[in-house]
Amino acid sequence: MKIGIIGLGLMGGSFALAIKKSFKKRDEKLEIIGIDHNDQHSLEALSLKIVDKITDDINDLLDLDLIVLTIPVNAILNIMPSLKDASKNTTIIDFGSTKEKIVESIPKEIRENFVASHPMAGTENSGPSAADRKLYRGKVVVICNSEDNNPKHLKFTKNIFREIGMKIFYMNAKEHDRHAAFISHMPHAVSYALANSVMRQENPKAILALAGGGFRGMSRIAKSTPAMWIDIFKQNKQNLLDATKCLKSEITTFEKLIEDENWQETTDWILNANELHKIL
Amino acid sequence: MKIGIIGLGLMGGSFALAIKKSFKKRDEKLEIIGIDHNDQHSLEALSLKIVDKITDDINDLLDLDLIVLTIPVNAILNIMPSLKDASKNTTIIDFGSTKEKIVESIPKEIRENFVASHPMAGTENSGPSAADRKLYRGKVVVICNSEDNNPKHLKFTKNIFREIGMKIFYMNAKEHDRHAAFISHMPHAVSYALANSVMRQENPKAILALAGGGFRGMSRIAKSTPAMWIDIFKQNKQNLLDATKCLKSEITTFEKLIEDENWQETTDWILNANELHKIL
Repeated sequence: MKIGIIGLGLMGGSFALAIKKSFKKRDEKLEIIGIDHNDQHSLEALSLKIVDKITDDINDLLDLDLIVLTIPVNAILNIMPSLKDASKNTTIIDFGSTKEKIVESIPKEIRENFVASHPMAGTENSGPSAADRKLYRGKVVVICNSEDNNPKHLKFTKNIFREIGMKIFYMNAKEHDRHAAFISHMPHAVSYALANSVMRQENPKAILALAGGGFRGMSRIAKSTPAMWIDIFKQNKQNLLDATKCLKSEITTFEKLIEDENWQETTDWILNANELHKIL
Repeated sequence: MKIGIIGLGLMGGSFALAIKKSFKKRDEKLEIIGIDHNDQHSLEALSLKIVDKITDDINDLLDLDLIVLTIPVNAILNIMPSLKDASKNTTIIDFGSTKEKIVESIPKEIRENFVASHPMAGTENSGPSAADRKLYRGKVVVICNSEDNNPKHLKFTKNIFREIGMKIFYMNAKEHDRHAAFISHMPHAVSYALANSVMRQENPKAILALAGGGFRGMSRIAKSTPAMWIDIFKQNKQNLLDATKCLKSEITTFEKLIEDENWQETTDWILNANELHKIL
């Protein structure tokens, strides 16, 4: 099999390592060709054996078995037109964290080939050196608007995701973006806000010296780079703002309860939050 | 050495296991006597060998070498008067998450014995079965207002904390409570708010199916029970409200930037948050 990966950071690198491992186990032939606009990343990906070959011409990928787009979501929008001449046999999968705008921008020539996906995996680290072949194992991947795909490309995509150990969910792109705002995009904004609210205090070092596991857990994703997240915030603006509004309203409810020393209702409010872990 | 532990949950149980391990290594004699108002916890603590003996009479502890208070912070306030007849040789340490009200409530008879401490360790789990002898290892403990302690009791306390692998910080109780509001109490409130904002959506199960590591990290402490946290919120009310106000104001800043599609300033806002991890 021949796979082209566009974007050799954490997501693309981890995908390459996972799929390589899986092919090696079965002693099957696999070639991975990478593209990254950052030359340093390309060289690193080669030396880490994430890819077998580097190209800077997207046309080199257009008749491979699979093209995977692991670049920021606005870059996915920008690259779309140059994919429209892909072979009818080439499956294209994107890993973008937003789906509605991406689905809308798929050229009609490749609509049946293009399986819009969102693997719910990642870390706060970036670049090829952050790649981890176990990143996707046991995690959920959402496939959106699969009714627009040719069954052959959909089946191929499902096999690929199962190959790297993922659990597949199906969802409408619109619904996905609303859910993702609550489960991922807003929490990232809140983690940044938490980090900023400490950093703006008089002596952040003295405060941070006291950080335990709770704070570390909540501020971990505040390490995520703007490069990826600005694009996500752009593409999911309205859902994101709806979600931050909900969160702020919960905090306001809490503040009012504390102001009023209404401990019984504060207890109920906490107990309601505790319920989350019966589902999660 | 004879140690009395009041409160046999996660904190008390983990302390007992850590100190037992350390004494066993040196083949030194140690007896731990426990008190817990929950009979089930007492029995569990005995069967898990967290304690050697159970009593329900606090007077049984008043001439031991050490008394450790690992109960919710309001329970610490309530128990203070019954500790005032403790021996001059007994060191008393509390593990409460707030310090100002506790320090104020220490009876003058035991002020020199009572070392007000806050180990920055914990998990979202509770009860003796959650006890973990490695809980405190490598973590920070804050000792407050140590100038009010007899040097003998302070030295003994420091040795105990070093024995279980902790790093000691010193701080004024007032300063501690403000810092703890930002690094621990407000983040707990935010984690509850995050959980509630998802739980109140139309279909929380569909949203939670998409939870990745980021959301899990941010909602983990939303599992913490009200029993402990209501008391902390009570005792640190004003600092907590100051901290939630700061956080909300950061979120409002973010919302305004997103509304205005001011991507350059959003990038700067994220970069400022990224700075946290250069200190943490």
